[in-house]
Amino acid sequence: MAAPRKIRLGVSMIGMGYHLAGWRHPDASAGGNMELQHAVRVTQTAERGLLDMAFLADGVGIRFNDVPAGALSHTSKNVQFEPLTLLSALAMVTSHVGLAATASTTYNEPYHIARKFASLDHISGGRAAWNVVTSATDMEAQNFGLVGAPPKTGRYDRAAEFVEVVKGLWESWEDDAFIRDKASGLNYDPAKVHVLNHEGAHFRVKGPLNVARTPQGRPIIIQAGASDQGRELAAATADVIYAASQTIEDARAYYDDVKGRMARYGREPEHLKIMPGIMAVPGRTRQEAQDRYEVLQELVQPVAGLGALANYLGDLSAYDLDGPVPEPDPADRRDHSRGTIFLEMARRGNLTIRQLYLSIAGGNGHRMVVGTPADIADAMEEWFHGGGADGFNLLPTWLPGGLEEVVEMVIPELQRRGLYRTAYEGRTLRENLGLAWPEHPAAAARRAALAQQLGSAAQ
Amino acid sequence: MAAPRKIRLGVSMIGMGYHLAGWRHPDASAGGNMELQHAVRVTQTAERGLLDMAFLADGVGIRFNDVPAGALSHTSKNVQFEPLTLLSALAMVTSHVGLAATASTTYNEPYHIARKFASLDHISGGRAAWNVVTSATDMEAQNFGLVGAPPKTGRYDRAAEFVEVVKGLWESWEDDAFIRDKASGLNYDPAKVHVLNHEGAHFRVKGPLNVARTPQGRPIIIQAGASDQGRELAAATADVIYAASQTIEDARAYYDDVKGRMARYGREPEHLKIMPGIMAVPGRTRQEAQDRYEVLQELVQPVAGLGALANYLGDLSAYDLDGPVPEPDPADRRDHSRGTIFLEMARRGNLTIRQLYLSIAGGNGHRMVVGTPADIADAMEEWFHGGGADGFNLLPTWLPGGLEEVVEMVIPELQRRGLYRTAYEGRTLRENLGLAWPEHPAAAARRAALAQQLGSAAQ
Ligand SMILES: Cc1cc2nc3c(=O)[nH]c(=O)nc-3n(C[C@H](O)[C@H](O)[C@H](O)COP(=O)(O)O)c2cc1C
Ligand SMILES: Cc1cc2nc3c(=O)[nH]c(=O)nc-3n(C[C@H](O)[C@H](O)[C@H](O)COP(=O)(O)O)c2cc1C
Repeated sequence: MAAPRKIRLGVSMIGMGYHLAGWRHPDASAGGNMELQHAVRVTQTAERGLLDMAFLADGVGIRFNDVPAGALSHTSKNVQFEPLTLLSALAMVTSHVGLAATASTTYNEPYHIARKFASLDHISGGRAAWNVVTSATDMEAQNFGLVGAPPKTGRYDRAAEFVEVVKGLWESWEDDAFIRDKASGLNYDPAKVHVLNHEGAHFRVKGPLNVARTPQGRPIIIQAGASDQGRELAAATADVIYAASQTIEDARAYYDDVKGRMARYGREPEHLKIMPGIMAVPGRTRQEAQDRYEVLQELVQPVAGLGALANYLGDLSAYDLDGPVPEPDPADRRDHSRGTIFLEMARRGNLTIRQLYLSIAGGNGHRMVVGTPADIADAMEEWFHGGGADGFNLLPTWLPGGLEEVVEMVIPELQRRGLYRTAYEGRTLRENLGLAWPEHPAAAARRAALAQQLGSAAQ
Repeated sequence: MAAPRKIRLGVSMIGMGYHLAGWRHPDASAGGNMELQHAVRVTQTAERGLLDMAFLADGVGIRFNDVPAGALSHTSKNVQFEPLTLLSALAMVTSHVGLAATASTTYNEPYHIARKFASLDHISGGRAAWNVVTSATDMEAQNFGLVGAPPKTGRYDRAAEFVEVVKGLWESWEDDAFIRDKASGLNYDPAKVHVLNHEGAHFRVKGPLNVARTPQGRPIIIQAGASDQGRELAAATADVIYAASQTIEDARAYYDDVKGRMARYGREPEHLKIMPGIMAVPGRTRQEAQDRYEVLQELVQPVAGLGALANYLGDLSAYDLDGPVPEPDPADRRDHSRGTIFLEMARRGNLTIRQLYLSIAGGNGHRMVVGTPADIADAMEEWFHGGGADGFNLLPTWLPGGLEEVVEMVIPELQRRGLYRTAYEGRTLRENLGLAWPEHPAAAARRAALAQQLGSAAQ
């Protein structure tokens, strides 16, 4: 009998947490987004909670518009560590938790990305994951010679080829290519290095990669695109997908849609783990949980709240905060599915501007559950057993406290229900996620040829 | 009275050491170039020796031609960690030694490089250094869409602007920009963030950087270019320069030339530390040292030796190994000053092909000293007091042993002579190198304005 399916959990450990006012929490270290010890504590907490992985979101530039003026300086969304340098440091103070870094395919070169993630995978003993993003903001584009982000279609075209090249480079060396025979002086077997010679619409990359095949065969690939192209890329290449759904109906539709696309790439549904974001705020009672949430909500200033909206819906500061959310100027609608989610939230709940920014100040459009550990476990179980999720990406309100509360209160409840591991199953992220070892294609081909030979010999 | 000038020491800790046969040393871990514990041990040895820094050379691709066929597979110059990911891991297991990574200006974007080194500087508490290179090989170019490396002039033009942009980005935030006042909700002072808005021949970069100003003000900049343009770039922007000289006359000429170029950039000679490479092989007796060296020399196979030459002088495998070094085909002469050095060595010593590859198998054109600790200290002192060096970049034959021998035998001798520190002077690499704090230009301007005001008020 197969072991019962378990909930996978990751945590988004960016900066001071997901809540707009997280850095102002009374117990927060207000400068934590640039404190190494803060990041160490968060990652070790994730490992204490037996989480599959700790994930660093990233932008190649500040991604929060200073609109209306003063918005940016009233948030902590300004500076942070660069993810790959931070994660390799964190690899040294953890031993099991997966380490996921975001890297953009729009402003990078595949050779660099292949190397860096391969290097992190070696350093961490097989715990590296790459969150593939295409960088949607104009602010990022302006740090790379452009006036604005290229159209989404072009970005995803490039992304698809980019991932293909990176995966190809990760197969430069077979697992047993390095002989390192001091006596003969032969360092590697020349038959087991594969020169990629990629020539495509976006890239010409020769190879081989100057890093050996990695402990996971290759790092884990994560995708978070919500659009049609994003889903397609995920179905074709990702091991994990992050999503943002508010209702089980949305989650299920998304889940079925993405998993349904996999067959055309010859993949099984269980090869891709779908992990919607969830902001869980636990308390011993519902009242305590609600009080915890309110501590942060009361710290959301209008300028910051308007700023959070402006990034997706344009500047609303000329409107009455307590009036309805106006139809945004199409020119302000960013090429981004999140804006649509926000507008739907406003329409569905008939929200004022203030109510809308308060309702996204926490989860930024992700699902929120404020309640007892049992409430939160129920909420997870509903989606997990209801065909909406293979696991969840925790979005703590603030760090480290918001994560510590989940680890201390919710994880034990999930374990009690048999929904969550009580020890790491394996050594690598791939093993813990229950994903198959990616056999090197050349080794697979040799194995197949041998099997055929044996088969024909037997006839 | 000023403290007496001390010798600065760094170590090149790439892979298995500098000697072509280092990985075949009887005591070497033959796969050390992909073993984290190997790198940890080397860096901790460097710190035990109170070295200023541990340096990772790098190529964005394999930089060793497989010419003649089989040459590459008979060396260990194939795979390695990516430097920035490795150094941030090593930052966690060391506390004082500087951490220098090579990064190419030809195949990178300044925004990424500024971020990554700033991040490493924060992670390491002020120990990051960037070795600026322009990537001379065609093999690297072919991993980035090109057929061959762009001409050197173009590479250095881009490098000069690249360094300017990176330095500008490092000044995005003043040291005291982050107020992080929970009460008022003001996270930073908007007057203390500076948007770069760079527009140049090669780059258009807006900024600001999404990393705070770093513990060293900015990371240390290292240059290793030997050509006219390389020297000029170093004189204009570098804190440290690596060099490759064989004789004190060469070293002195180089030293005077580079330091002489600094005035036109308003810099003092002591703002740039010149550190020629040195391969030091110590023994308790000269015989022991020579024996140690011979252990490695005997392990150099002709195919590997010819390979090392082919990278600079073309394929010589059709010639008699024990005959003279032929005049290379101009088509094979790479756009690289090292080839010239090798030819001069051959002509000066009237060397056969075998003798030439044996004489570069160790130091690859750098100075070599095989002898007692006193011999090695004498050799260093001669250049240090003779106007040829501010310090040295140690090139161990093999790792970790070749470095351990220097740390255990040569460092005490230098200390006995008062030429070397007995404890780290400071917390940051900048402090240990004795380099001045780079005041933020905006802060400096405010200070100057205030001084003028006070001056005119006093009149
Ligand atoms: C949980 C989650 C994390 C994300 N992290 C990042 C990130 O770190 N950097 C980034 O540029 N985009 C990030 N995105 C945005 C996605 O890559 C993508 O652009 C977005 O979901 C919109 O999808 P679309 O571009 O396919 O419309 C994230 C999205 C989600 C749901
Ligand atoms: C000690 C030393 C270390 C170097 N390390 C690197 C390196 O890691 N990567 C690289 O591409 N070039 C490296 N170089 C090469 C230099 O950047 C430069 O290309 C070379 O010295 C030739 O100088 P030129 O290009 O100005 O002629 C190094 C040179 C020296 C002397």
